Amino acid sequence: MRTYLDCLPCFLNQALRAGRIATDDEEKIKQLLDEVGRMIGKIPLENTPPETGRLVYRKVGEITGKPDPYKEIKKESTQKCMALYPSLKKKVEMSDDKLLTAIRIAIAGNVIDFGVDRRFNIREEIDNALKNNFAVCDYDKFRTLLDKTDEILYIGDNAGECVFDRILIEEMKKPVTYIVRNVPVINDATYEDAVQAGIDKVATLLSSGTDAPGTILNTCSAEFKKVYDNSKFIISKGQGNYEALSNEKRPIFFLLKVKCHVIAKDIGVNEGDLILKGINI
Amino acid sequence: MRTYLDCLPCFLNQALRAGRIATDDEEKIKQLLDEVGRMIGKIPLENTPPETGRLVYRKVGEITGKPDPYKEIKKESTQKCMALYPSLKKKVEMSDDKLLTAIRIAIAGNVIDFGVDRRFNIREEIDNALKNNFAVCDYDKFRTLLDKTDEILYIGDNAGECVFDRILIEEMKKPVTYIVRNVPVINDATYEDAVQAGIDKVATLLSSGTDAPGTILNTCSAEFKKVYDNSKFIISKGQGNYEALSNEKRPIFFLLKVKCHVIAKDIGVNEGDLILKGINI
Repeated sequence: MRTYLDCLPCFLNQALRAGRIATDDEEKIKQLLDEVGRMIGKIPLENTPPETGRLVYRKVGEITGKPDPYKEIKKESTQKCMALYPSLKKKVEMSDDKLLTAIRIAIAGNVIDFGVDRRFNIREEIDNALKNNFAVCDYDKFRTLLDKTDEILYIGDNAGECVFDRILIEEMKKPVTYIVRNVPVINDATYEDAVQAGIDKVATLLSSGTDAPGTILNTCSAEFKKVYDNSKFIISKGQGNYEALSNEKRPIFFLLKVKCHVIAKDIGVNEGDLILKGINI
Repeated sequence: MRTYLDCLPCFLNQALRAGRIATDDEEKIKQLLDEVGRMIGKIPLENTPPETGRLVYRKVGEITGKPDPYKEIKKESTQKCMALYPSLKKKVEMSDDKLLTAIRIAIAGNVIDFGVDRRFNIREEIDNALKNNFAVCDYDKFRTLLDKTDEILYIGDNAGECVFDRILIEEMKKPVTYIVRNVPVINDATYEDAVQAGIDKVATLLSSGTDAPGTILNTCSAEFKKVYDNSKFIISKGQGNYEALSNEKRPIFFLLKVKCHVIAKDIGVNEGDLILKGINI
């Protein structure tokens, strides 16, 4: 996805939110906003938003001296989600279509996103995802391709959300490589977060190599790119990965909750909608 | 009021909104946001927000070639409000406390503000202002000082809102000097807008001399400052004028609807609250 004009003030808002998580020092946050303000003029609108996000969050670390301000928030998110794991499993077991229920749960988990300015109630979100129709629903394609597929590349998004991804991984019953960010950026899941969610017990963990809040291919490792280029079934979770990969040529299913009006417009849906969208299938 | 960190992304959002009203040319709007982004680093947090707003809206005019993008919107606002005038007069006539009702109506009119990202329904707003309690209500002080006063300095805010101000001016039954902006900025009322609302029939019109979206004294004319310095009863409408004058030493009553969380925090109230706040009384 390209950068829209609305993304530009949003970069400043993101810097402000992350700066405040990292420090109470108003002068440092002002310095951060000054730098991000200067950055605006250097952002080509053809770039994807996570390419700029990467530079913004790097600045947060440089200026505040805290490269991982969301560390504690991430740990807590995972703990809270792990407590839900048994009840989520039960919801899948008791449903008529277990795969669809697991997909719904995986999308519900995508609400745990500290990159956007939204409060959320995870229990309400699960109920909502189990009850409501998706705005885009390529479930038939998903199920058909899953039957034919030998292995799955699953690109994760946020810490905590990993627990919900685990439910879907367990339900797909195929070998999965689960991708995490290389270093902390916002509350995106790193290796440590995925292990805390027990993903290592159900999938092979691999870092994408990027430090961006989205899988920007030219910032990923050669190892990841080889896996990506050979994948015939890719699941991409969340907004940042959608922004980075929406124009790519591989067979990708985007699973996300739409949390910003710019992405809603890009997909052609409304804010708050639940999306299961396949491309190049 | 000082500039808060939250004001910095807001300046970019305001530039985007005004840019879009002025032009469809995405490149020009990008250029505008680039310039406002660079401006961020030069904003001292001690400045009042309208001091920066002045530079932002000047840039909108320079880059888009439209110094008055809200011209038609302003005309329409005033026309719509003029259609309400007879029913507003009736509400005052039929009320137990005519002055208080007129104040409530004047505050309701403050919702007509295109500088903030809010939709509004003016009829609902009037009902709300007539029914609900104010978060700050210095009405007793207002009435007492009004009885003792010979003349009133009334600093207007937005076009359309002038019609609601006229209701209060008529009810106060004292000589009023009504202040307008010198040149168009956002949808703030200029001489032309005040005349369209018939303010010239009930008050003496005077320009403050400023091109800022708030009465920043050091950008005002000597003529205005003389009147201001001698005034013993000043009414200041809206957020921009509050931001510019909240730390001044004159006896001022601020009448406004709080439309942003930063101003809410500065006053110590909630977004959406109605305010009648006197200082230096």
